[in-house]
Amino acid sequence: MFAPPLQRLIDELSKLPGIGPKSAQRVAFYLLKVTPSEAGLLADSITEVKEKVRLCAVCFNVADEEICQYCRDSRRDSTVVCVVQEPPDIAAIERTREYQGLYHVLQGAISPIEGIGPDHLRIRELLERLRHPADGRPPATEVIVATNPNTEGDATAMYLERLLTPLGVRVTRLASGLPVGGDLEYADEVTLGRALGGRRQMGA
Amino acid sequence: MFAPPLQRLIDELSKLPGIGPKSAQRVAFYLLKVTPSEAGLLADSITEVKEKVRLCAVCFNVADEEICQYCRDSRRDSTVVCVVQEPPDIAAIERTREYQGLYHVLQGAISPIEGIGPDHLRIRELLERLRHPADGRPPATEVIVATNPNTEGDATAMYLERLLTPLGVRVTRLASGLPVGGDLEYADEVTLGRALGGRRQMGA
Repeated sequence: MFAPPLQRLIDELSKLPGIGPKSAQRVAFYLLKVTPSEAGLLADSITEVKEKVRLCAVCFNVADEEICQYCRDSRRDSTVVCVVQEPPDIAAIERTREYQGLYHVLQGAISPIEGIGPDHLRIRELLERLRHPADGRPPATEVIVATNPNTEGDATAMYLERLLTPLGVRVTRLASGLPVGGDLEYADEVTLGRALGGRRQMGA
Repeated sequence: MFAPPLQRLIDELSKLPGIGPKSAQRVAFYLLKVTPSEAGLLADSITEVKEKVRLCAVCFNVADEEICQYCRDSRRDSTVVCVVQEPPDIAAIERTREYQGLYHVLQGAISPIEGIGPDHLRIRELLERLRHPADGRPPATEVIVATNPNTEGDATAMYLERLLTPLGVRVTRLASGLPVGGDLEYADEVTLGRALGGRRQMGA
């Protein structure tokens, strides 16, 4: 339909998640209109990400050096490790500005339906980290399991709890309950049930 | 928040139309996971589009040579020229498989609010084409004005009608009316009004 190089770009853009044929066409025509240097910035940043970004050797977060920015930062509290499924989860926790500890990225969650077992995740590496902390830094005393509050995340959390408690670390899980700003009337029954079960004494 | 090369990619993706910060992050992490050659295909197709795609010297459609595929094709009927606002409109008309003529892309529509007047569009070039047809091909006898059925498109159509009729060509406009598969009950009053005004005798 379009000139071959344009059609190729539309085809490549259509492969991206959340971008259908219409959006791909819109983006392609946008790229046709911007200056070559603006389009070049996008092309170069794609190439650069593939060349420079890898997984941190300690926590498996994305990093542009062997060790990621959080593991490198000696001001962070090494006694707490927060376990997440994917690197973007770290960004979500950092945005709260309430956490100063380290991270560990599992690179997924246990899901028998998708054939993902504990061996497919970075659980062995987590155990290794907890048993042999980095030189000169205090060992972890608490592991916060921040997997997603769904079936796979819960299964992973339970698996980790059984595995890590014998090591003598405190294993905690993020609270489940009503989202702030939400409406009780419209809360689903599972969330509301968890909010009830996890109720806390006021003023305590 | 993320490693700098990744953050740069997210920032560049966020500039694209219809892609917000969340989608940009999702696409960036997708690109992190695919093979370098798959990501390279996307980066290369962006570069290639900027290098190879330009506007057809005759009709201002996008083209990878000096003259676009439709203007080059001697089997197309040079006696009809369909005038559209943007290159993607050509793809929409081609999908009908009902049109065999040539095209002319205005590169926009008259819009006093946005400060776009007739001089900003490829109208002078349209007149030139109609007055001096390509060597050996029959001249245009009909111009189909296929600008969008909104204020700007209608204004442009009326302007073209006044300009082109004195040249002795038949100036037509795409029919406005109920979309096929639509519901009369939910048609807006302007569309329904135009459908009434443009009613046709059955069996004629």
